[in-house]
Amino acid sequence: MVRFELLPGHFVGARRGRLHTSHGVVDTPAFMPVGTRGTLRGLTPDQVTATGSQIILGNTYHLMLRPGSALIAEWGGLHRFMGWNGPILTDSGGFQVFSLAELAKIDDLGVHFRSHLDGAAYHLTPQSSLAIQRDLGADIVMAFDQCPPLPSPPEAVRQAVERTLRWATICRDCPLGEQQALFAITQGGLDLDLRRECAHQLVAMNFAGYAIGGLSVGETHEEMVRVLQQHVSDLPVDRPRYLMGVGMPRDILAAVQNGIDMFDCVLPTRNGRNAYAFTATGPLRLRNEIHRTSREPLEPGCDCYTCSTFSRGYIRHLFLVGEMLGPILTSIHNVRFFQRLMARIRQLIEINQLYRLVEEYPVARTEAELLPESVDS
Amino acid sequence: MVRFELLPGHFVGARRGRLHTSHGVVDTPAFMPVGTRGTLRGLTPDQVTATGSQIILGNTYHLMLRPGSALIAEWGGLHRFMGWNGPILTDSGGFQVFSLAELAKIDDLGVHFRSHLDGAAYHLTPQSSLAIQRDLGADIVMAFDQCPPLPSPPEAVRQAVERTLRWATICRDCPLGEQQALFAITQGGLDLDLRRECAHQLVAMNFAGYAIGGLSVGETHEEMVRVLQQHVSDLPVDRPRYLMGVGMPRDILAAVQNGIDMFDCVLPTRNGRNAYAFTATGPLRLRNEIHRTSREPLEPGCDCYTCSTFSRGYIRHLFLVGEMLGPILTSIHNVRFFQRLMARIRQLIEINQLYRLVEEYPVARTEAELLPESVDS
Repeated sequence: MVRFELLPGHFVGARRGRLHTSHGVVDTPAFMPVGTRGTLRGLTPDQVTATGSQIILGNTYHLMLRPGSALIAEWGGLHRFMGWNGPILTDSGGFQVFSLAELAKIDDLGVHFRSHLDGAAYHLTPQSSLAIQRDLGADIVMAFDQCPPLPSPPEAVRQAVERTLRWATICRDCPLGEQQALFAITQGGLDLDLRRECAHQLVAMNFAGYAIGGLSVGETHEEMVRVLQQHVSDLPVDRPRYLMGVGMPRDILAAVQNGIDMFDCVLPTRNGRNAYAFTATGPLRLRNEIHRTSREPLEPGCDCYTCSTFSRGYIRHLFLVGEMLGPILTSIHNVRFFQRLMARIRQLIEINQLYRLVEEYPVARTEAELLPESVDS
Repeated sequence: MVRFELLPGHFVGARRGRLHTSHGVVDTPAFMPVGTRGTLRGLTPDQVTATGSQIILGNTYHLMLRPGSALIAEWGGLHRFMGWNGPILTDSGGFQVFSLAELAKIDDLGVHFRSHLDGAAYHLTPQSSLAIQRDLGADIVMAFDQCPPLPSPPEAVRQAVERTLRWATICRDCPLGEQQALFAITQGGLDLDLRRECAHQLVAMNFAGYAIGGLSVGETHEEMVRVLQQHVSDLPVDRPRYLMGVGMPRDILAAVQNGIDMFDCVLPTRNGRNAYAFTATGPLRLRNEIHRTSREPLEPGCDCYTCSTFSRGYIRHLFLVGEMLGPILTSIHNVRFFQRLMARIRQLIEINQLYRLVEEYPVARTEAELLPESVDS
């Protein structure tokens, strides 16, 4: 099972905690890098550990298509299959079905869709999502929800909330593995009353943790922050709060300030594969001519393997010739960048000086760009 | 400088030695994995070290085009540029000019060619090859030679030998870096008299080591062995002997038995990128259905990171979904496979039981396939 421990004295606004799982402890606020298809792209599990990542995310949608959850169950679950011994969280598959699958047809029972790979027909329901996640064996599994894009008509948002609540009751009664914990997801778009209603009903069902879904799907930073400012208070103090799909350093900081404990995003790895390196002062575009002769590390002062060993000029060369070591090294740095950011956030919370973060991380004042998937990734 | 030390008692046939360079010692017989464009594809230098590789090869042709040797010189050489602190050998660029460049026109001064990347015109000569290799700063640099394909008309082979000898005299007089050693290359195709003549003239010029070029370019295994059986005796006992571009376990074993000390080949990494894993009993094709549920490591008993952590079924999954971790993990294993093979060869030489190798490595009885470059590499 999963146990959440709040450290003394930090119950309002930003807070420090620890998530205890059977695969280890996660210090919160925590950033979960995304290992979509059973691997954090380009990194070995040893390299993931070296970035300071304590928990990773796996995607139910991708894994149910390939290699299929039954196959992973033969290994005893995703941990053993992919050689990652730390905690894992799996999403419910719903978000990817709506964004990636073809011909998705939703009704009160679930979603009929066709694989974006070969057109094969699937029916994903609260029951089947939980059964798949049980096969995958993640420490934290997510209830099956419906996540509408933003903006959506109010009626569509309300209907998504109703389905999400109905499905949450089904998920709550599905059998889990002994060590697994189930988190519920709130929906409601930017409608604060709807969000509150959704949260209250979910809280009454007593889940191990609560995720805020339906954000980071098209709204502005300010809209997202406005939702968090009220909505977090709809969630119980003693359970972990997870803001799904977030995000950029600015979003993470604002969310932490409002009491969020967990994050996930493809930003460090996807941007890393696209020659985009994060630094505290802003991004580097590594294909740029300006880095040609630079013998500086990606980020002076960074302790990652990439920064302790290689120069910008060398990494630029790797990208220009198309060597996969370029994406690898930049992803290692970017994930480490996010984990150092989170470590600093945790330190500053402990000494009640989180306000200092933007001085040290000017990048947390600005918007970061999520790059599109490139051909080599 | 480079010093070659032969261990006592092994001066006929297979022999054990040590190559001392300013970047470390190389135990011979040695296998050099190929880092074409300033990186062993997909592996970090730490991972290369963990495979037991003591020396790697860099390609002058690729590096002169991108990023250019002048840029690498700004770093103080290839070691620092690519973060590899062990010994490096660079080839002369000649072989790739003939096999990759466009419109290569050769005369007694050198080769005019156009880059296969952008059509830019270059003139590679003995002098410019050595100047580039001086910039790159490898521990061992190679004389500029002409390597004709096999079969070639006798007159073409003779002309290549004459040019190779003329160019060797030029290379010998080119300035080198303080720590660099120059190896010469014999040519002569399958003509044993021509090979002997070429070797004798090169030996008279007193190089630090001698490479056998112009093999592994289309001839059969038996033809190659026949050349080695006589030709190695044309080379001095006290200098390292390097068989260029070889190769498969069977070729390596036969060459070691005939007194060769050094090898290089893209086989472990290129085949690794193509889902082809080496084992002592023969190759695995990892995309095959047979591996789908296999929880075995690539090679039971192998001590590499891949085999100690991952299963065939998982690595098959990585190849099927196109994750770069598949090529990475298989390349790590394959390079380690070659280094374990070489380590065992060295042990068996020391106890005079090299004949036992084929019992332990049945794969050394058979031909291995060099796969074509794939799109994802």
